[in-house]
Amino acid sequence: MTPGLLIVVSGPAGVGKGSIVRKMMDYDENIVLSVSATSRPPRATEAEGVNYFFKTREQFEAMIKNDELLEWVEYCGNYYGTPKEWVCREVEKGKVVVLEIEVDGASNIRRLFPDCVLCFVIPPDFKELENRLRGRGTETDDSVKARLTRAIEEFKLIDKYDYLIMNDTIENAADSFFSIIRSERMRTSRNQLMIDNFKNLNRSE
Amino acid sequence: MTPGLLIVVSGPAGVGKGSIVRKMMDYDENIVLSVSATSRPPRATEAEGVNYFFKTREQFEAMIKNDELLEWVEYCGNYYGTPKEWVCREVEKGKVVVLEIEVDGASNIRRLFPDCVLCFVIPPDFKELENRLRGRGTETDDSVKARLTRAIEEFKLIDKYDYLIMNDTIENAADSFFSIIRSERMRTSRNQLMIDNFKNLNRSE
Repeated sequence: MTPGLLIVVSGPAGVGKGSIVRKMMDYDENIVLSVSATSRPPRATEAEGVNYFFKTREQFEAMIKNDELLEWVEYCGNYYGTPKEWVCREVEKGKVVVLEIEVDGASNIRRLFPDCVLCFVIPPDFKELENRLRGRGTETDDSVKARLTRAIEEFKLIDKYDYLIMNDTIENAADSFFSIIRSERMRTSRNQLMIDNFKNLNRSE
Repeated sequence: MTPGLLIVVSGPAGVGKGSIVRKMMDYDENIVLSVSATSRPPRATEAEGVNYFFKTREQFEAMIKNDELLEWVEYCGNYYGTPKEWVCREVEKGKVVVLEIEVDGASNIRRLFPDCVLCFVIPPDFKELENRLRGRGTETDDSVKARLTRAIEEFKLIDKYDYLIMNDTIENAADSFFSIIRSERMRTSRNQLMIDNFKNLNRSE
């Protein structure tokens, strides 16, 4: 069986993380998006275990206390976080779980899940990031400025990541991302069972 | 500039290393085969620096003494080895240098060239390796047995390698190999200059 994998993707707002991940998921049905837990009540269209794992505040706070979350945030009065158990189960099944998070959470995920792979998406250059944020048409000038200032802070943490994915075009970036997944699954450290089979061969076989 | 890379490929006789590398070289003109030094006299069709770097025995022995070779062997009375300087120069130019060597040499290459990537090619299963060796039609029964015994010894050193490339078909294996090259070139540790540029940005730019 091909080994499972937890892939973390970070990068500044506007760099195109979501588009790259969506494009790349078409390449391999074993690639799945991480499902978050939340204390927010479900909307009519949302299903348990598909969009979110729905929890009460008390349940969520117990998960925080018991270190059951790879990362979590409180946003507009609701908790959001990634349940470690679900990720572990999917990876054990051989799935590639993709988790899109802020840079602050990446170190914590490596601590709780040492075999994870950390990818950082960069724009071709900084000006291009500004153009993309303005191109959205939904950001005020102040909001663009705030996001660019935040991007500069995020760049300072790039060294924590394993790989840089340059988003020059969505197609190239999705190909690059998929190369990382393919090659990480070929790591000797992730294929110990197969290696042991080869190491234990003898001429009688 | 995309970073250069030294890729070492090992694997048992008959596993198809040569075919995979030749196929994969069509994918990117930056992939080059390592050029060996030898004390063997040039043949009429051979050109200096293309097929080999031709050296006298004395010159070659001086290279050994001065640690100028990534690996070397003596075979049928002639020396063969990989000049470190040539590899370094090509990698600095941004080339991906592919070096096919025996398992014994791999550890030494990592010592002299810590940033190298070690790949080991495995057959889908052991029986298939035997079939391929017999299928060559050039091997005696004793020679097949000797090669298989040697393969079992080589498998014991797989843990020294970074990646396993399964050669189920040449096309798949060449794709796998190329994924490794692509992703290794995206490693943050190989892109420090680009990272420093992003880290040194400030809002005035």
